[in-house]
Amino acid sequence: MSMIVVLKPDVSPEAKERVCERIRELGLSPHLSISNGDFGAVIGAIGEGGAAVQDQLEQLEGVEAVMAILKPYKLASREFHAEDSVFEVRGVRIGGPHVTIIAGPCAIESRELVFEVGRRVRAAGATILRGGAYKPRTSPYDFQGLGVEGLKILREAGDELDMPIVTEVVDPRNVEEAAEFADILQVGARNMQNNNLLLEVGRTRRPVFLKRGLAAPVRELLMSAEYIMSQGNHQVILCERGIRTFETATRFTLDVSAVPVIQQDSHLPVFVDPSHAAGKRDYVAAMARAGIAAGAAGIIVEVHSCPEKALCDGPQALLPIEFTRLMQQIRQIAAAIGRTVVEPSARPSSSRG
Amino acid sequence: MSMIVVLKPDVSPEAKERVCERIRELGLSPHLSISNGDFGAVIGAIGEGGAAVQDQLEQLEGVEAVMAILKPYKLASREFHAEDSVFEVRGVRIGGPHVTIIAGPCAIESRELVFEVGRRVRAAGATILRGGAYKPRTSPYDFQGLGVEGLKILREAGDELDMPIVTEVVDPRNVEEAAEFADILQVGARNMQNNNLLLEVGRTRRPVFLKRGLAAPVRELLMSAEYIMSQGNHQVILCERGIRTFETATRFTLDVSAVPVIQQDSHLPVFVDPSHAAGKRDYVAAMARAGIAAGAAGIIVEVHSCPEKALCDGPQALLPIEFTRLMQQIRQIAAAIGRTVVEPSARPSSSRG
Amino acid sequence: MSMIVVLKPDVSPEAKERVCERIRELGLSPHLSISNGDFGAVIGAIGEGGAAVQDQLEQLEGVEAVMAILKPYKLASREFHAEDSVFEVRGVRIGGPHVTIIAGPCAIESRELVFEVGRRVRAAGATILRGGAYKPRTSPYDFQGLGVEGLKILREAGDELDMPIVTEVVDPRNVEEAAEFADILQVGARNMQNNNLLLEVGRTRRPVFLKRGLAAPVRELLMSAEYIMSQGNHQVILCERGIRTFETATRFTLDVSAVPVIQQDSHLPVFVDPSHAAGKRDYVAAMARAGIAAGAAGIIVEVHSCPEKALCDGPQALLPIEFTRLMQQIRQIAAAIGRTVVEPSARPSSSRG
Amino acid sequence: MSMIVVLKPDVSPEAKERVCERIRELGLSPHLSISNGDFGAVIGAIGEGGAAVQDQLEQLEGVEAVMAILKPYKLASREFHAEDSVFEVRGVRIGGPHVTIIAGPCAIESRELVFEVGRRVRAAGATILRGGAYKPRTSPYDFQGLGVEGLKILREAGDELDMPIVTEVVDPRNVEEAAEFADILQVGARNMQNNNLLLEVGRTRRPVFLKRGLAAPVRELLMSAEYIMSQGNHQVILCERGIRTFETATRFTLDVSAVPVIQQDSHLPVFVDPSHAAGKRDYVAAMARAGIAAGAAGIIVEVHSCPEKALCDGPQALLPIEFTRLMQQIRQIAAAIGRTVVEPSARPSSSRG
Repeated sequence: MSMIVVLKPDVSPEAKERVCERIRELGLSPHLSISNGDFGAVIGAIGEGGAAVQDQLEQLEGVEAVMAILKPYKLASREFHAEDSVFEVRGVRIGGPHVTIIAGPCAIESRELVFEVGRRVRAAGATILRGGAYKPRTSPYDFQGLGVEGLKILREAGDELDMPIVTEVVDPRNVEEAAEFADILQVGARNMQNNNLLLEVGRTRRPVFLKRGLAAPVRELLMSAEYIMSQGNHQVILCERGIRTFETATRFTLDVSAVPVIQQDSHLPVFVDPSHAAGKRDYVAAMARAGIAAGAAGIIVEVHSCPEKALCDGPQALLPIEFTRLMQQIRQIAAAIGRTVVEPSARPSSSRG
Repeated sequence: MSMIVVLKPDVSPEAKERVCERIRELGLSPHLSISNGDFGAVIGAIGEGGAAVQDQLEQLEGVEAVMAILKPYKLASREFHAEDSVFEVRGVRIGGPHVTIIAGPCAIESRELVFEVGRRVRAAGATILRGGAYKPRTSPYDFQGLGVEGLKILREAGDELDMPIVTEVVDPRNVEEAAEFADILQVGARNMQNNNLLLEVGRTRRPVFLKRGLAAPVRELLMSAEYIMSQGNHQVILCERGIRTFETATRFTLDVSAVPVIQQDSHLPVFVDPSHAAGKRDYVAAMARAGIAAGAAGIIVEVHSCPEKALCDGPQALLPIEFTRLMQQIRQIAAAIGRTVVEPSARPSSSRG
Repeated sequence: MSMIVVLKPDVSPEAKERVCERIRELGLSPHLSISNGDFGAVIGAIGEGGAAVQDQLEQLEGVEAVMAILKPYKLASREFHAEDSVFEVRGVRIGGPHVTIIAGPCAIESRELVFEVGRRVRAAGATILRGGAYKPRTSPYDFQGLGVEGLKILREAGDELDMPIVTEVVDPRNVEEAAEFADILQVGARNMQNNNLLLEVGRTRRPVFLKRGLAAPVRELLMSAEYIMSQGNHQVILCERGIRTFETATRFTLDVSAVPVIQQDSHLPVFVDPSHAAGKRDYVAAMARAGIAAGAAGIIVEVHSCPEKALCDGPQALLPIEFTRLMQQIRQIAAAIGRTVVEPSARPSSSRG
Repeated sequence: MSMIVVLKPDVSPEAKERVCERIRELGLSPHLSISNGDFGAVIGAIGEGGAAVQDQLEQLEGVEAVMAILKPYKLASREFHAEDSVFEVRGVRIGGPHVTIIAGPCAIESRELVFEVGRRVRAAGATILRGGAYKPRTSPYDFQGLGVEGLKILREAGDELDMPIVTEVVDPRNVEEAAEFADILQVGARNMQNNNLLLEVGRTRRPVFLKRGLAAPVRELLMSAEYIMSQGNHQVILCERGIRTFETATRFTLDVSAVPVIQQDSHLPVFVDPSHAAGKRDYVAAMARAGIAAGAAGIIVEVHSCPEKALCDGPQALLPIEFTRLMQQIRQIAAAIGRTVVEPSARPSSSRG
């Protein structure tokens, strides 16, 4: 990564020379240029330098600022891959002109719940089924998920309903296990910079659904995608799910502008999670629609058939009937911007047998 | 406003009695109740108390917490006025099922610019014309607006094009003057808590377009509306324009969820300003669409015929052709959620003469 | 302000020429330089350009980024005035090696309160008396201050106790009146970007105590100081009072690092307001000590003799005895970093005798 | 955890009864009380309920709000352990009246660096040596640390200098290995909610140095401590290291008020990390002093003998001479608030002789 080094107006010729020398030591090539009034000089440092090189140059005597020219991510960028990436998971398309809907309960609480909710969301138009087996909770005293038993239930439901399934992994030690059952591996917001987990999912051949961290600028989300992609797994789906701000009317603040921002710089599909951002059922549909209108590749939304008895995040779950109504609006909004919602296959696979 | 006072588990009978006495002194009536284990007691303090009463009770010995039951705003709330407020400004409807589009240049730079942009946005479907005469800039060395000369230009353009006009006021001393020319008075984000300005616009009979402060929770925006309404002017239009967060890819973070949040608690129409939130032309259309899809009563958007020569905020201005394309998408998105875009009158009023 | 314009790697010679031409049109002089691989070229645009110039250049075809070299503020900067500014208000020094303590009640509630608290804080070591006559409240239903009657009380107390007084102004129309009574005019956080108010206080000869806005980066605080100074009034005291973040355990988050940050770039004295940042008495002393240890020129702190009956912000007011204890710690901490607390004159105003 | 359930003014008797019934079903005991005007009724739900119970009750018809009475953490709270916790690590005291200084390089780059910096910081007064072997970097292309080879170097330096050592763990799979070498295990900000890592370090007998997440309210930091303590390891040291806000002059915003906030609610020692918060050497000393003045149990600070060649975070490292000067100020500030800095043993490990 080449850099531009701006020197201070009062830089001495000796300091200027030392900066050039240091640039050479670091394996880059200095190109000294304009030298006038407000700034002492500008040096182009051409070559391959990372964060440490930038940090080191900034500390040299006479240096005002060092600016990197290129983005720090490569594989995730449009420079690397100009066209929108489009993936296919068990026949369901993600990315490009497709709008794909993921729905299901927050946690896999029971077989009954998963099948019941799965059937309802499929009927309404969802094509991928979600459910959490390992729940990352704030309190050690809350329900932590069913673990591998939950994964098995979700797998069965996915097979029965002919829907690919997505589930969250939270520990590098569970990635292999989860990859056996799940079609898509989710990395949650709180693990977005758990680098070893990123590397581990990067070594599987499963698409990874990567959620933005609560305090992560878009740039850092793309760096986390880069960690995964650096292991050879280029099937990364990004997800905006709300950032932490001072506003407490919603659980988090959905940064819907992340959708066009990411789409400008990256070829990876971007989803929106209105449920965790809202934290409250009443706001979920509006935020889901906003995400689709902004150009998201899809949404991931929590649906529960009896949310007032949910073991986790009940207040933000849509009722199946609300989800059905939302799907109708989503189809029209997608059409307004030239996109098409991916619809479920004609009938569940169980009847295929 | 009644309150609930929770006492500590180990509160003494004497302290409990003192709390009740103080509640009486403050003009409220104490209703002592449950007293058990985890909490010493709960006292309902029934009557009219404001922030000072809550503050004072919280400091008494033995008090764990004091919770206000009702919202601190009244006139702005759905409790006061259950139905959506709908205003009409020179024949243009705002609120309820209507989607109203305000567009124009950031600053009134010249007569030519305002007429040129006005014609273009009207042709595309905007019904209200915007333009700034007093510009609240971060630096004293930047262009500060044309003042009253600018207002006159905007007025003429509005008359010529048969569009009501909206302009920002920044000083209580200019409100009367601005109210003579403008149909709608805007209070900007940086003045959302300039209470004397709020009171002053509250004394005019002009609808007020009130933007959310950069660091204001929705609740405080509604308190500022309350300041205006307390003077008898109930025609307040709220506007989400982005809050300040750690994300720097956009100038501010558009909190699109503020739309459903406000709509649940207040009858006032809510607009979205995608231009200031984005700070960059490329993201404006996506954010405008998101606002409409979330249920906003309209958008206010900056358009410039030659943004690379704009004296103010050029990088975020849409080109007229981009605005035209956006309008087409907005119409379809509004339809998807049962709303209708208010269209311009058949022809400009110039032909009125 | 000169700028550096970085062109895209694939910029055409024609686009490059057009950028140079536009730089000339804008009255700056282009100095084309390095042109290689990762970036198309770097152009130094030498001369005087403001935000609009930067905005305009950024939009040109082929431009990757435009970077301003100098800080946007001048009079407030160390480049303009290298040494710490030191002011004297009625014999009390502010800035440089001096640590100056401002204390008093939040609001001027009554003559008795102001004199009682004034005597107590003076006895403990405060040298400047504070009190609010115009209170900028969130709700129109809360106590709004005594206005000019309050100012008169504060003036009398200041005279009686031989303490300069500071009070907040919130409206350009009250600045003249307030400047008659007060020795120092405060501009509060919610008015930090109320430019007309800044200009108005800049036209008085009173030192201005300027608080940082809730969502203002340090850079914008310095730009607001620049507004005041541009009118010829160079006696500006800055104040860090907490910014708005996601943390709700305190009312705001005291950004204590603003102290060294400002001191590096500006010659103006920086105070810390621990009371508004904390919002809760129990945390005030720790935050006041932190401010002094970080190198603040002083603190402004709220003290109330009966905070559980205060009409405004009682929960954050220190009791006089707590303030006395704090002063003792502050003296030692100031000494630890080579500073000295400015002590009150030997006895209150001889005029009493 | 008992709760208070507030019902809406217009709640029906049937809905009221259903809420009471549901409270019983959830294993708590309902105590119905005050019923008047502004609120329909208040029900005390006495017993043991967690987040799911609160969530479930909030969704019932007629419920306005549900408030938990106690804090969600137990072992970390002052209710569980009233006195300050004091730990001893290889003879070095942490907590209570002691101020303990941890210093060393950011990353273990080489044996020479660690020994050189270790000697310098010990001579100045640091008693615990820090150094990173597994570096959690934002980019996969940056230096990731020496791993177990680094741990061995740090161990040797600690033995040679008679200083306990602290190092960060980032993966549950490395905890056992790290616990063999290190005296204190650090969990970094980005892993504060990596629950499986928390559980794993909770199963070791090593004190854990737990850093606050970039977007974590203090309450969530204490919940993370609770995860560790729930495994039987009560030796948890908390660390404020800056939160993410809109301010970019520093890398993060040091929330120094977290120190008194935590001390009021928890018995665990709280440190401050000025280096990561500042991101820039020039601000580190001021922020370190602020932390000590606010009452922190110590600081953890990065020192490098040649920061302009550091492989990681050089710009924020203090030079040894700057650290020595800072230590002198820290001793005096600690004394000002009745604390004492823990000094190194008379000479490095006798085992050398």
